[in-house]
Formats: sequence, C-alpha cells, structure tokens
Amino acid sequence: MMQVHGGTVEHFLDFSANLNPLGMPESIKQAVIDSMEKWGQYPDPETKQLRQKLSMAEQFPFSQIVCGNGADDLIYRMISALRPQNAMICEPCFGEYKKALQEYECQVNFYQLDPSQNFVLDSSIVSFLHPGIDMLILCTPNNPTGVSVPHSLLEQIAEKCKDFDSYLVIDGCFLDFSNEGSHWLNALVCDKCILLKAFTKNYAMAGLRLGYALCGNEDIAKKIHRAGQYWSVSAPAQAAGIAALNETAYLRNANTLIWTERKFLSDELCALGMKVIPSDSNFLLFQGTEGLADAMLREGILIRDCESFGLHGYYRIAVRKHGENLILLDAMRRVLYGKNCYDSGDDVECR
Amino acid sequence: MMQVHGGTVEHFLDFSANLNPLGMPESIKQAVIDSMEKWGQYPDPETKQLRQKLSMAEQFPFSQIVCGNGADDLIYRMISALRPQNAMICEPCFGEYKKALQEYECQVNFYQLDPSQNFVLDSSIVSFLHPGIDMLILCTPNNPTGVSVPHSLLEQIAEKCKDFDSYLVIDGCFLDFSNEGSHWLNALVCDKCILLKAFTKNYAMAGLRLGYALCGNEDIAKKIHRAGQYWSVSAPAQAAGIAALNETAYLRNANTLIWTERKFLSDELCALGMKVIPSDSNFLLFQGTEGLADAMLREGILIRDCESFGLHGYYRIAVRKHGENLILLDAMRRVLYGKNCYDSGDDVECR
Repeated sequence: MMQVHGGTVEHFLDFSANLNPLGMPESIKQAVIDSMEKWGQYPDPETKQLRQKLSMAEQFPFSQIVCGNGADDLIYRMISALRPQNAMICEPCFGEYKKALQEYECQVNFYQLDPSQNFVLDSSIVSFLHPGIDMLILCTPNNPTGVSVPHSLLEQIAEKCKDFDSYLVIDGCFLDFSNEGSHWLNALVCDKCILLKAFTKNYAMAGLRLGYALCGNEDIAKKIHRAGQYWSVSAPAQAAGIAALNETAYLRNANTLIWTERKFLSDELCALGMKVIPSDSNFLLFQGTEGLADAMLREGILIRDCESFGLHGYYRIAVRKHGENLILLDAMRRVLYGKNCYDSGDDVECR
Repeated sequence: MMQVHGGTVEHFLDFSANLNPLGMPESIKQAVIDSMEKWGQYPDPETKQLRQKLSMAEQFPFSQIVCGNGADDLIYRMISALRPQNAMICEPCFGEYKKALQEYECQVNFYQLDPSQNFVLDSSIVSFLHPGIDMLILCTPNNPTGVSVPHSLLEQIAEKCKDFDSYLVIDGCFLDFSNEGSHWLNALVCDKCILLKAFTKNYAMAGLRLGYALCGNEDIAKKIHRAGQYWSVSAPAQAAGIAALNETAYLRNANTLIWTERKFLSDELCALGMKVIPSDSNFLLFQGTEGLADAMLREGILIRDCESFGLHGYYRIAVRKHGENLILLDAMRRVLYGKNCYDSGDDVECR
C-alpha cells in the first residue's frame, strides 16, 4: 500500500524496480524454505559454500570473492575498507556511491555524461583521470541510463587506473542482462579492480539481500570482508544464492524476453514522442512530459522519476513481460491523450 | 562441519553461541514462509510494520526506533552516524565495539573490569568519565561476563553522560534474559542515550539477522537510519520480527528454564572446581583449566574460549536445556577426570 497525494493505491504495477521480469525462480523459494534449520544459528560469516559455487560460476578465484547483504552492503564495506580520499563518479549514477563516499569523508569528483550523446561514456574520460584520483567508479550497464561502457574503452581505463595505482570499481549489477553477457569482464578484474554484482536483479530476489564482489586480489577481498559486521549475509540469502546459481536457463530465458520487450517498449515510447536512451539492460531511460510519474501513479503504475538522479523530465521503467508492458503503454496513452487507445486498437490517432 | 586439529566434527553440541535454549518458535518459521511473496521485492527500508509492533511492545516512540541487519549492523551504522572521537568501553566487552570504533578512527579508551570483583561495574567508573569522552558503551548484561550494571549506578552514569553531553550506548542484547527484565531501562533512554537490542538471542533467530535501536531522540534515530545502505533489513527478517513480538509466553518460559538451569550449571561447575562468575543472563563465564575448550571439542562440544576477550583460562557456555547441560557436565568430567561419572552416578568421586 502506498501513499499517493493523500490517497492510497493498493494494487499497482511496479515498473520502478529493475528486477528480472520472470520473478524469483521456484527453486530459490524452495531452497530458502529448506534452509529453515539454519535460521536459528549464526550464518556462516565466510559464506564458504556460496563462494565455492560462485567461484565455479564466475570462473574466479574463491579467495577473491566477498559476499554481502546486497551489493549495497558491499559498497559501504568496500569504501570503509579501502578509504579512497578522492574518488570519481560518472553522473548520472546510482546514488549510493556518492552517499557512501561522502559518509567516509571522501572527496567526490563528478564526470558528467552527456545527454546529447545518450549518456555514452567516451574516451574523453581518460584525460580526466590523474594520479590524484584514487578510486574510479564505473557502472556498466549504468543505472539509470542502461548504457554500457564499450569494451575497448573499459580496457583503456583499466590500464590507466593501473598506471595511476587507482582503484577501479566496476558496478556490474545489471551486467547479466547486457547483450554481451558478463564473463568477458572478469578477466579485467585484476590488481586494484573490483567488480560488484548482485543476485537482487538477476534472480528477482531483492527482499533476501545478496550481492558479491569479485576482487582483483586476495588482500582487497580480505579487507572488504573484515570491514563492517561479521555476519552480514543471512542464512536464507546464502541458501537462495546457492540455488540461484543452478538457474542458468532461467537467466537465458529472461534475456530472450528482455531483449525482445526492450525493443518493443523502446519503439512504442519513441512512437509516443519520448526520447528513449538506447539501453543494454533490463530497463529504459526516456525523456517524457512533465509530471508523467505522478500521472502514471494515478493510473496504478509506478515509474521512476529520475529527478533524484539530477535528470529533470526523465523517467526510468523496468522491462517487464509483454502483457504488463502493454498495460503500461496503454496507461501512458491515456495519460498523454486522455483516451484508451490500446483497447480500441486505434494506434495511429493517439500517436 | 568444523575443522578440529585437522580432523572434522560433524555432530557437535554448541554451547558457544548464546541463543535462547528453546530454539526458534514455530510461529516465526511459519511467518518467514508466509512472507514468501515479499522475497522478490525490495524490503520496506523504513521497516514500518515492524517498528509499529516494536513501539507497542517496548512502549517506546515509533519515530525513535531503527532496525538493522542484526544489532551488529546497528553498531557500525550508529558509529558512522554519530562519529565519536573519544569513546570508552568497559573491558572485557563484545569485540565488535572496539572494531567498529577503530574502523571509524575513534580513539578507544578502556575501563578494565576487575576479575577479583567478578567483573561487576562499580561507581568508580563515574570518576573516569569526563567531557572529553563523547561516547560511553556499556553492555548490560555484559558479554562475556553475564554481569548486569546495577540500576542505581546506570542512572548515575546516565546523569553524568548528560552533564558531559556524551552519548551513552547501552547494549541490552541479553537484557530480556535478566532477572529484572528489560522495560525498566527504556525510561532511561532519553537525550543522547541509545539502547541496542536484538531478536537474535531472544528468539534464537541468529540466521535471519535482526536487531533494533531505541534512540533517545528522533534526530539520532534519523541519523542512524540514514547511515549505511537503504535496504539493510531483509523481508524474511521483518516478517520474523513481527511474529516474534507475539511470542510473549515463549520468553517467559525460556527464562523459567534459563534461571533454573543457570543455577544448576553454576553449582555443578563450582563443584568441579571452576570459578564461576555470577550471571544475570543466558550464559556463564567461568575460569577453568588450560586447554579446556580444545578438550571439550574432542568430546563433540563447543564452548567459547575467552582468550579473544583477553581472558586467559576463562570459558563461556550458553545455558541450554537440562539434558544438554548434563551432557556438557558429563563430558567435562571425562575431560577433567578421564572417566564418565555422570553415567555411573558416582558424583562424589569425580568431583
């Protein structure tokens, strides 16, 4: 139930959270229930079984993996452990990085992505890096834009960070929805590089809280592990993660759906006159009319107003199943044109 | 499965974790299962429903309660939010306080509790407080000693902290097992006082991770809530906490058992020649023979070696059910006297 201008919406369709549109696999729910006998004991602080499974799935050394109570937990622990003094973020960006860095009194430098270039990061960032920047944070695909950093540029940036002995933090929480997959990136994670990932989005298990970091070396992993509390990952989350890693077909199926629906939604939004940013993830950023989020909420649909990302007039929507996407588009047409065009099938008139 | 001198113990009886000996109530397990539909969504970052229930149970203002991913999460978030520069801890003490304070570069001062006085805090601490100490941390009952701070002394200390404008953090994670109950203390929580509590021990739900802080004012609560990540409390933990607060008879029953068994265990340990510290909680600290923890482990029983608390030759055991306590005592007699006295009933000889 949520408050809407003093009223309440009990049933709404949530396009504001970027979760896997297929929902949580049944096997994960079952694994959580089956872990019941572990709910009463302290969870394994080393998350050994889960990390063993992750090590195989990611083809990455066991001792360089750290798990957390969601990727967000790891953002704070990583910054507490590594204490950058002068970090750089590419804006717009997921807000927790700025918040976490400032909580640890780190100077935050902003590299502004250009809306007229569809927020694509280009090689001009390289000239902005210098030895004074001790941590660079890159999200790929980025949130809220859905835009990935090109391979070759990422390699170039990693090289530069290495030269400058700077930490390179890559937020890959949406990487598994990218058209290029995620594994190519793991080879880049060496030295002072850290790749953050989450089960949250991939397996639609945001309520269970589970994320992990692939660290460039064992020393970084140990430092992050030691920062903050000892038992951060709950028993249900550990069980869920282990089960999730067996769900490989599920992710493939989700991507087949996402890539098709992303194109569909993008085309339809363009046809409605929105400026849509080409996305490599399971969500879409677009520039729309003033007050769209409020108007959509009155239609029972939550979309993300990106004002808080500093993007006035921009909105973010998750790519969901076809039927749900049709409902979204239908509601949007009602909001924009005051009539129900989808039901009438009269597409031309309302566009 | 745990490593023991290169070997493994698959089935062991754990007296090292101080959990409610009755185990997790069935209603909590059921509530977690029933929360399944929430596992897929982001959990309520404000933990509203849970805090409403806590507000009634603790008779404490809703807006001054903050929940966390275990009390340990709140220790770190509290220190991050309040940033003490010069804190005082009474040693021995739960290790996370020192670790958390140092992680935030706080100067830590230690007030040593006296073993010859059974680690009881007395009024001499008052003269150690001064305006330069901006945070005092007191655990009551204390871990690993089980000793409570006397009411009148706590009031005196609170008054002094108020005079000096210092934060007073009271760790009451074991308070509900105290003979005097816990509610009397809530009235003391005003101004810059914070009382930390956990569901972990009370309801034997350590694997689910849930703790809370009762804050002296709304401003402190807001600051702690804002520190660290937004979604720290998982959906299963929120559901479990709400169900737990209906379990009032369970806590009463547990205490009837604990207080009886604590006396029984204490008497028996004394009879075995151990020096037992009088406890006001669900565990006992005692001084025993060198290498006792290792020897007990070989008997399949985990007890806590308190070396890591700086207490050489001290051990801590949880108070469990009578049958389990008999097994512990039996194993201890075997370790000490090389024979099984409990089975023979030949008590005198082995004591």
